[in-house]
Amino acid sequence: MTQIEITPRTKPSRLPKRSTQELEQIYAILDEGLFCHIAYIENNTPMLLPTGYGRIGNKLYIHGSVGSHLMRSLADGREVCIAVSLLDGLVLARSAFHHSVNYRSVVLFAKGELVTDEQESWDALEAFTEHVIPGRWAEVRQPSASDMKKTMVIAFPIVEASAKMRTGNVNDDEEDLSLPVWAGVLPLTLQASSPIPDPILNPEIAVPAYVEHYNRQQKG
Amino acid sequence: MTQIEITPRTKPSRLPKRSTQELEQIYAILDEGLFCHIAYIENNTPMLLPTGYGRIGNKLYIHGSVGSHLMRSLADGREVCIAVSLLDGLVLARSAFHHSVNYRSVVLFAKGELVTDEQESWDALEAFTEHVIPGRWAEVRQPSASDMKKTMVIAFPIVEASAKMRTGNVNDDEEDLSLPVWAGVLPLTLQASSPIPDPILNPEIAVPAYVEHYNRQQKG
Repeated sequence: MTQIEITPRTKPSRLPKRSTQELEQIYAILDEGLFCHIAYIENNTPMLLPTGYGRIGNKLYIHGSVGSHLMRSLADGREVCIAVSLLDGLVLARSAFHHSVNYRSVVLFAKGELVTDEQESWDALEAFTEHVIPGRWAEVRQPSASDMKKTMVIAFPIVEASAKMRTGNVNDDEEDLSLPVWAGVLPLTLQASSPIPDPILNPEIAVPAYVEHYNRQQKG
Repeated sequence: MTQIEITPRTKPSRLPKRSTQELEQIYAILDEGLFCHIAYIENNTPMLLPTGYGRIGNKLYIHGSVGSHLMRSLADGREVCIAVSLLDGLVLARSAFHHSVNYRSVVLFAKGELVTDEQESWDALEAFTEHVIPGRWAEVRQPSASDMKKTMVIAFPIVEASAKMRTGNVNDDEEDLSLPVWAGVLPLTLQASSPIPDPILNPEIAVPAYVEHYNRQQKG
């Protein structure tokens, strides 16, 4: 297991046993998550962008339109904070006070780097698509030169990051244990339901197995 | 329908048709979401806190330990940006370029206000619990005076906010429509699986209906 360095910003201030700097765990959470929240500062105000991402090695990639003011802002090297949060279950204690959630989350501090290498941009878009739905990239019409010209890719190095998680069951106070209240964990997962074909899809085209059997939890 | 005022920060810079200031839609998204991300500035750096919340009228409430440095920071009246993001489906176009997601999200700009009124704190904790799992509050051991003393509640007025959403099916380019590629939407929902009782739970205590039939989507 690879430990990455703790910095003042990634040092846990509370409940340090729920925090880790293990790179493998950080990557596993990033690979299971579907989207992130990016916090940045604009005119001295904190701002938030929810967006998709992909990962190659120790870089997290986002993309957007070259016409987007926001994308240009994120590419200018300013500090951002990126979070990926997975909710795994509700922890239902006998007391309101000890209710909690099971979760896994990553917080990453980084400065965006505009990707100018064409191959790296292409690879990032492939990683993005395969991150969201493995098997899709090989089947679709891949980006044209014009698509690539319209697309800006930004890389965030995964160097200053930490993961936090809570697992397990309830932790009630001793004196509450005999209360006649159901207590336990209600697991939550992101589930796919039946795919809805494009109304103008040729009906002879079958639903691909990677769509029909999409399972976020088995990925990564 | 109540429209709230657009400000420079909530004015959509791109795709304005996906944006709305309708208060009912903003509330519906906040009521369905289970947790938010709060962006704030500390030492000139953007920081992120994923946390649960509840809503009463036009206030969003969070709570935490009175011993938490972070909670005290959020209660000091600094500007924060809060996002709640719901992922509704993957939009699988025939071209990689036109892939998208269906989503609903709210972004709220506000300054935290420390709640000092005991009744308001109590109501906020009840709203929080009932927001996460309706039916739970009446059944559990409610907060003791000691629990309340350990808990800090912060209110964020829902005044400067906007919602964004994408719904519907794929939007491929005309020239891609005849490609032999499956296209459509893969709906995603947060689903509960079988509850896991506390190992030391009295086995005569049955799983409550509101736990067994927990359904996030039908709420709100």
